[in-house]
Amino acid sequence: MRILVDMDGVLADFERGFEEAWQTAYPDLPVVPAAERRHPLVQDEYPPELRGHVHTIFHAPGFFRALPPVPGGRAALEALWALGCDVRLCTTPLLDYRHCVVEKYEWVERELGPAWLDRLILTRDKTIIRADVLIDDRPQLNGSDVPTWEHILYDQPYNRADRSKRRLTWQTWREVLFSDGA
Amino acid sequence: MRILVDMDGVLADFERGFEEAWQTAYPDLPVVPAAERRHPLVQDEYPPELRGHVHTIFHAPGFFRALPPVPGGRAALEALWALGCDVRLCTTPLLDYRHCVVEKYEWVERELGPAWLDRLILTRDKTIIRADVLIDDRPQLNGSDVPTWEHILYDQPYNRADRSKRRLTWQTWREVLFSDGA
Repeated sequence: MRILVDMDGVLADFERGFEEAWQTAYPDLPVVPAAERRHPLVQDEYPPELRGHVHTIFHAPGFFRALPPVPGGRAALEALWALGCDVRLCTTPLLDYRHCVVEKYEWVERELGPAWLDRLILTRDKTIIRADVLIDDRPQLNGSDVPTWEHILYDQPYNRADRSKRRLTWQTWREVLFSDGA
Repeated sequence: MRILVDMDGVLADFERGFEEAWQTAYPDLPVVPAAERRHPLVQDEYPPELRGHVHTIFHAPGFFRALPPVPGGRAALEALWALGCDVRLCTTPLLDYRHCVVEKYEWVERELGPAWLDRLILTRDKTIIRADVLIDDRPQLNGSDVPTWEHILYDQPYNRADRSKRRLTWQTWREVLFSDGA
């Protein structure tokens, strides 16, 4: 079984990183707490006059490098690997690639270990990668192909409106992946 | 038809970039001219005592950014696109990703234009990407899967020992891709 695992919102805690960076940069402006997020893209949570601020936060040098890990993510990847699954990291960089791209590699090396660099794929179209499962927090993934993978949502407050897909967390992955359907 | 196009040795003139960087860094040491290369990996052309020098050249900051384009590459990509082909750039970064990764994005933006950033895929396993054709200069490509694509060699002096594959250049791609077999 090949499993593609997204990074932001699945392995790297984008929400917590964003909240902390926002509070540091704009201590007088309220942050939308992760638990109250309703849109998959953080910029859609804020009024138009604050979207430039949102953009500034996650395009800043060091933002992606500094993201804290989602608890349980590394242990789950290692357990899946030990079970014989072909696990790959599959992430979409920002079009403004300047800091994001290299920092994703730095993050993987630090948080997962250098062996995982060999399993990292950067693509803006995940549908053309052959796999059995994609674990991703974004409910809508654009791409050219009908994917070979089942898209399993990594459960997040902002994707709960999507009831069409199975969902898991790093606390529930064993029963979800190794019960019916996968 | 989806066509994956490798970067180094296909779109970016790694050989010429390497020769020029070598002559600048080590003016007293002979360089193996591109036309005399016999091994797909440049480090295999040099005696063991010079391999550290080879490594230094292509791990230096700015090396990948500065590679000159292979003549005709951009025009061929644009022509393929205009013909309705789904063209993607598919490149394997060095495991020492520090400079290489971001510089590949910079190269694509400068030499091909920003629209191509959306079609750039970084992976160390090209066999799991679904496509009809992969144009690559490396005769041996390692990966997990039996690929869906036909591997067409981008003709280079160092891959001529491989007679098992069709080959093309940016001067011959029309007849090779649009004749028999593809």
